[in-house]
Amino acid sequence: MASSASSRPRVSQLLKEGQAGAAVDISGWVRTRRDSKNTFSFIELNDGSCMANLQVIVDATVPGYAETIKQVTTGASVRVTGELKESPGAKQRVELQAKTLTLLGVADAVKYPLQKKGHSFEFLREIAHLRARTNTFGAVARVRNCVCDSIHRFFQSRGFLYVHTPIITTSDCEGAGEMFHVTTLDPLKLPPAAAPAKAAPPAEGTAPAAPNPYAEDFFGKKASLTVSGQLEGETYACAVGPIYTFGPTFRAENSNTTRHLSEFWMIEPEMPFYELEDNMQLAEDFIKTIIRELLERCPEDMAFFNERIDKTVLATLQHILEKDFRRVSYTEAVEIVMKADKAWEYPIKWGDNMQAEHERYLTEQHFGQPIIVYNYPRTLKPFYMKCNDDGKTVRAMDVLVPGVGEIIGGSQREENLDVLLSRMEECGLNPADYWWYVDLRRYGSVPHSGFGLGLERMILLATGMQNIRDVIPYPRFPGSAEF
Amino acid sequence: MASSASSRPRVSQLLKEGQAGAAVDISGWVRTRRDSKNTFSFIELNDGSCMANLQVIVDATVPGYAETIKQVTTGASVRVTGELKESPGAKQRVELQAKTLTLLGVADAVKYPLQKKGHSFEFLREIAHLRARTNTFGAVARVRNCVCDSIHRFFQSRGFLYVHTPIITTSDCEGAGEMFHVTTLDPLKLPPAAAPAKAAPPAEGTAPAAPNPYAEDFFGKKASLTVSGQLEGETYACAVGPIYTFGPTFRAENSNTTRHLSEFWMIEPEMPFYELEDNMQLAEDFIKTIIRELLERCPEDMAFFNERIDKTVLATLQHILEKDFRRVSYTEAVEIVMKADKAWEYPIKWGDNMQAEHERYLTEQHFGQPIIVYNYPRTLKPFYMKCNDDGKTVRAMDVLVPGVGEIIGGSQREENLDVLLSRMEECGLNPADYWWYVDLRRYGSVPHSGFGLGLERMILLATGMQNIRDVIPYPRFPGSAEF
Repeated sequence: MASSASSRPRVSQLLKEGQAGAAVDISGWVRTRRDSKNTFSFIELNDGSCMANLQVIVDATVPGYAETIKQVTTGASVRVTGELKESPGAKQRVELQAKTLTLLGVADAVKYPLQKKGHSFEFLREIAHLRARTNTFGAVARVRNCVCDSIHRFFQSRGFLYVHTPIITTSDCEGAGEMFHVTTLDPLKLPPAAAPAKAAPPAEGTAPAAPNPYAEDFFGKKASLTVSGQLEGETYACAVGPIYTFGPTFRAENSNTTRHLSEFWMIEPEMPFYELEDNMQLAEDFIKTIIRELLERCPEDMAFFNERIDKTVLATLQHILEKDFRRVSYTEAVEIVMKADKAWEYPIKWGDNMQAEHERYLTEQHFGQPIIVYNYPRTLKPFYMKCNDDGKTVRAMDVLVPGVGEIIGGSQREENLDVLLSRMEECGLNPADYWWYVDLRRYGSVPHSGFGLGLERMILLATGMQNIRDVIPYPRFPGSAEF
Repeated sequence: MASSASSRPRVSQLLKEGQAGAAVDISGWVRTRRDSKNTFSFIELNDGSCMANLQVIVDATVPGYAETIKQVTTGASVRVTGELKESPGAKQRVELQAKTLTLLGVADAVKYPLQKKGHSFEFLREIAHLRARTNTFGAVARVRNCVCDSIHRFFQSRGFLYVHTPIITTSDCEGAGEMFHVTTLDPLKLPPAAAPAKAAPPAEGTAPAAPNPYAEDFFGKKASLTVSGQLEGETYACAVGPIYTFGPTFRAENSNTTRHLSEFWMIEPEMPFYELEDNMQLAEDFIKTIIRELLERCPEDMAFFNERIDKTVLATLQHILEKDFRRVSYTEAVEIVMKADKAWEYPIKWGDNMQAEHERYLTEQHFGQPIIVYNYPRTLKPFYMKCNDDGKTVRAMDVLVPGVGEIIGGSQREENLDVLLSRMEECGLNPADYWWYVDLRRYGSVPHSGFGLGLERMILLATGMQNIRDVIPYPRFPGSAEF
């Protein structure tokens, strides 16, 4: 067979556009097989291009039928050539009448872990290398791809440049400190410089020079995995115009929840000349564009999620599309929560962090639509957010959506050099460690803003899946970096 | 001024499509200013959207002209409103007659590091946070963005899914071992488990259980930064069809060269049912598509590189577009090199690695076109490449292009379980460490292939830039993880 692999149509194309009479050469994996009296068999063939299978009819005239068909079990891989026919069944438009059937790879009917019956997501996490072969995880992979592609096209169509900020870093964007070390030192052996040794006494009257404990390490300095590309992103936004990052970020937090990962992907746009209101509008357009394109491009997968995973997911997404994102100041939001006739687990007053229960009350019950909470107390937010004239709040914004809560966090950045320096002092940071970031306020400083979207949170919202470990191919969390 | 930031046109749009008479509100950075007799000034305004500047004429009737204009120095940021006029000069179609001029941020005429004069790339590396404000690095950022966007669109238009393989990993794809550790242990302090201690003597007749030295570490196991997403990529290709990765990869190699980085970005497609020939064709189409779109979409930046950086870059790219990629077996390639009337620094015989001098001779002099060398000796290549029937070679392929040398490496993968296991043994690997990878050959194994493109190598080829540290925003190399 001379056809090249790239020119062969896939199942999704055949089901949509295939014409009866067309010659077909297709390969894939067997989902099920049914035999009829040893005279013919139905194979449900899946190639991952869509949720649906191609029905293949193999009858006894196919060469080798009797010997081959018994090995064509769930999970086996086959190549079939034949001719498309109109399907008498209501389930599909066309089916494939086989002329040849080649078994590519077997899948032992006892040992293959993905037999027909359903499996728990916990079990599937242990065989993450195979779970994309199931309906649910195949659909997650396609939805994730669609969302990622929409993200790139959203920014590219608006003239934003895709910028790769560094993964290994010697600065700590959030000042949060929960970072992984990156080292070529053996953490089980002390490097020579750090080994306890009798230091020579310092010469009379001179302070001993502090030795660099990382002198022997690869970068000669303490290095970590990034928690955000924002600070470096700002340097590009203040040079080439609006940019976005799309890369992995890391938290060495010991959280075993359904909402946290140690390694996750973030998208962080950063825009010069954008003030807080421009930032809010972009965030709203961004979320709506992702959702609109997902509903258009993956209707079959989305119908599956709505039927099998979360019966409210389509309504939730539709609702987000239809409603304006209501903008509510933090002060107003706290007042609403305080007035609500509810027994809160965490009572709140002005100056406190809002908890998930408050956020969900606001977006789901009080407003019943997505909201953007802005102007948070300065004490709750990092040093780089622009201070308001009231001396108390900063130009932060969080986008909260029904069903998920916070999906985006962002702010206008402080562009005034003196204010930035005093905020760094207030936060206990040494400006010398951030000299290059401070330089942006020394030389051609401009108003600018940006935000971050956690990709996996977006996929949770998009699919109705409940555990963040199930929307990334190989989740990393405390105690687990398998595969 | 009520216009939202996102709706204001940028310099690139004004220069291309702006009509005389149009009202404009634009912000950017000053490249130069020339004054004429204290009655008016020309500002060359750049906003990073393109190489060219917008010429702005500010005359003494503009409010505050006399006080403001002296501070409008190179690097300062300004906002200008006014009206577009046809430009009398030949350099641009339109220019902007200012009605208002607002100084957003100063740039001290002495301290600002990017004064008009040219700067060495070495110096600019030390101020990497500002270098994207120069012509060269602005152009690199735009070309890099264009290449990345083309890569995504190439694969998306062919139905490949974008998959995020893990960054933190406990396996070593190449078996090369030059990996960074990822740890929450303090590399300067021994963890309790590793601290030397008097172990209790093992009970009579029992071997002491080996303690897990990483028991106290975050993942409970030795974890590293990935050197390739290929193995995990294969698991998705064998489930959802063709996929590609696009993510950072890492090498803890102590190489201080113009061709190596410790952190770089790789694109790794992986395709089920593709054999070596399909793989070669895809690689050729891929490189040609990236180059064709770059020449179409960034003509101005490419003209700059051709004029200022490498006078052969456009000819090299055009040549790659026009020629078929000649396919040459390793055996044939070595024979050609051995017969060549050249004094090699490294003489070669069958079974040796080809050196850069051989590769460049083949692609630049002997063939004078891009070539794909395939079927390498098994002993030179990793365990996962498919063995040929000759018992000596594997179905590897390297794409070599004039001017750069190797740009892509790939292979058909070994899909036969027994052959894979014996290759792992030959390479000294323990199959138990790769149980999930081996599973792909147990359950529904299929022929499949893939390759890897180093993004920064591609940008070197595309721009003619000489040092890989200058084509990534913040390069990481031994001794340096600044910014």
